[in-house]
Amino acid sequence: MTAAGSKCRACKAPAVIDLPRHNANFCAEHLLQFCRRQVDKAIDDFDMLAPEDRVLVAVSGGKDSLAVWDLLVERGQQADGLYIGLGIGSYSDVSGEHARRFAEQRGLTLHTIDLRDDYGYDVPTAARATRRVPCSACGMSKRHLFDKAARDGGYDAVVTGHNLDDEAAVLFGNTLRWDVEYLARQYPVLPASNGFPKKVKPLVRLTERETAAWCLVRGIDYLVEECPIAAGNRHLGYKEALNAIEARSPGSKAAFYLGFLERMAPLVADRSAAANGELSACVSCGAPTSGDTCAFCRLVERSAAHEPVSVELVLSRGRR
Amino acid sequence: MTAAGSKCRACKAPAVIDLPRHNANFCAEHLLQFCRRQVDKAIDDFDMLAPEDRVLVAVSGGKDSLAVWDLLVERGQQADGLYIGLGIGSYSDVSGEHARRFAEQRGLTLHTIDLRDDYGYDVPTAARATRRVPCSACGMSKRHLFDKAARDGGYDAVVTGHNLDDEAAVLFGNTLRWDVEYLARQYPVLPASNGFPKKVKPLVRLTERETAAWCLVRGIDYLVEECPIAAGNRHLGYKEALNAIEARSPGSKAAFYLGFLERMAPLVADRSAAANGELSACVSCGAPTSGDTCAFCRLVERSAAHEPVSVELVLSRGRR
Repeated sequence: MTAAGSKCRACKAPAVIDLPRHNANFCAEHLLQFCRRQVDKAIDDFDMLAPEDRVLVAVSGGKDSLAVWDLLVERGQQADGLYIGLGIGSYSDVSGEHARRFAEQRGLTLHTIDLRDDYGYDVPTAARATRRVPCSACGMSKRHLFDKAARDGGYDAVVTGHNLDDEAAVLFGNTLRWDVEYLARQYPVLPASNGFPKKVKPLVRLTERETAAWCLVRGIDYLVEECPIAAGNRHLGYKEALNAIEARSPGSKAAFYLGFLERMAPLVADRSAAANGELSACVSCGAPTSGDTCAFCRLVERSAAHEPVSVELVLSRGRR
Repeated sequence: MTAAGSKCRACKAPAVIDLPRHNANFCAEHLLQFCRRQVDKAIDDFDMLAPEDRVLVAVSGGKDSLAVWDLLVERGQQADGLYIGLGIGSYSDVSGEHARRFAEQRGLTLHTIDLRDDYGYDVPTAARATRRVPCSACGMSKRHLFDKAARDGGYDAVVTGHNLDDEAAVLFGNTLRWDVEYLARQYPVLPASNGFPKKVKPLVRLTERETAAWCLVRGIDYLVEECPIAAGNRHLGYKEALNAIEARSPGSKAAFYLGFLERMAPLVADRSAAANGELSACVSCGAPTSGDTCAFCRLVERSAAHEPVSVELVLSRGRR
């Protein structure tokens, strides 16, 4: 990940990674220090967590979710994990193994939910049954179940492993459409409100290359494969476009995302519908919703009644 | 520019161009109609021009400036041109020939300024003398001289040929930096204020591919070559990134630019420094300025005293 012979900025030992946007190379030890400091700074700057907060980490088995869990535990935060089996073929099987192994090796608590076993559907089937794009059915299911688990378990916050690349790509998509309501909600900490738990993204100052390096140095065995359904989606197209900009001008991506938070987010903050809307309890599950039955319960009802759909069938339908 | 055998949406004649963002193909005649309608809509939507306005078109000899001049004259607008010789080697020589030929063939009035003959410098020399990036020295010189010519000639507006690709790329750059002051000024019509003439961009609803097609069909011989100094600059990188997005999702670029004007521009409109600042007259040339001597007069003073610098020397300095 770095040029031969380059040296750590901090200690002059051989470097294991170069970070052009910081104009720096780091050895393994100082890379870890760099990551810890970026996480500390994110948590401090955005007032994400109190030391005594009990948090629930959304664990996928990929580098980001395992890295953020590792970093929070290392900080002394009380952090349990929740893994959701999405039923996306072998991708889900392998990701679950990575999540369980990480937790077992460290003696951490990992809750698990399996969509098929516990709710009678999976993501490919939900996509077909509801005619949603799969990433939409998946994201909605995960948000609902993480929120519910946090409420039921009395956790102070749901932590996700969204990194700088993720957030910049989402921001780019929302900006391309000037979706002011979504822009108003794009903040690395969303306070608890209306029955929704606090949501926290401590990795927003780290790129995916940096979280991968964290896992490598820390010996964390994560699932490298990306979700096969997400491959080729627009979000990844936005990442590619930003990566091309970043390659020309290192630091552009961080300036885009952090500059938004500093200078534009305050101008649109009052445009969030969630901040203004009135919610009631879902008649079926009790979750906060703007209607009678929440979107998740409607999705479960339709999906569980549908015959199972294989991931291959969803993939053969082409671009999302 | 289109698939073999495709037909015009309007008349079913063989098509000469396909426009994926409009999900349409057009024959030559209906392409012209399409362009006229887009220009009419831009002028109407943004209240750019009154029928009796006398305008000064900023003419470079490229497709956009010749197309906008042609379109305005066709509409019956009283429109003269101003060409500025920038001293960028053979690029400037050839661009001037195209501008003059266009005006002569149509009996239109083309004013000309030559930076070297009239002000004792050229763009390469100004860039070196002032240590500005060349595109900055060039842009500032052009803005000043077009403004001055409009004031001196009693024109109601300066018209430029900025197209949708240009405006989207500038918007993208300003957005990547969240430069709120620049975002606040990114509007296709800027009213006259503080001694500056009205500025109008009637082509903001047309892409550069569409203005090129206009010129092709209308038999307008324009300079195809891009400015050799601008080649490889960030602006072109932003265009490439947006083109990649557009190729995946036709219409994204127009949605980005027009969506900004509709939903975000109103939120930042009051952040423009120009709208708030107090200006006085330049002690040297009388142009509005925030200081004693305007930036253009300072540039001329330093550049005219510098020995001439060739365009090749500027190009050899690499990326801007």
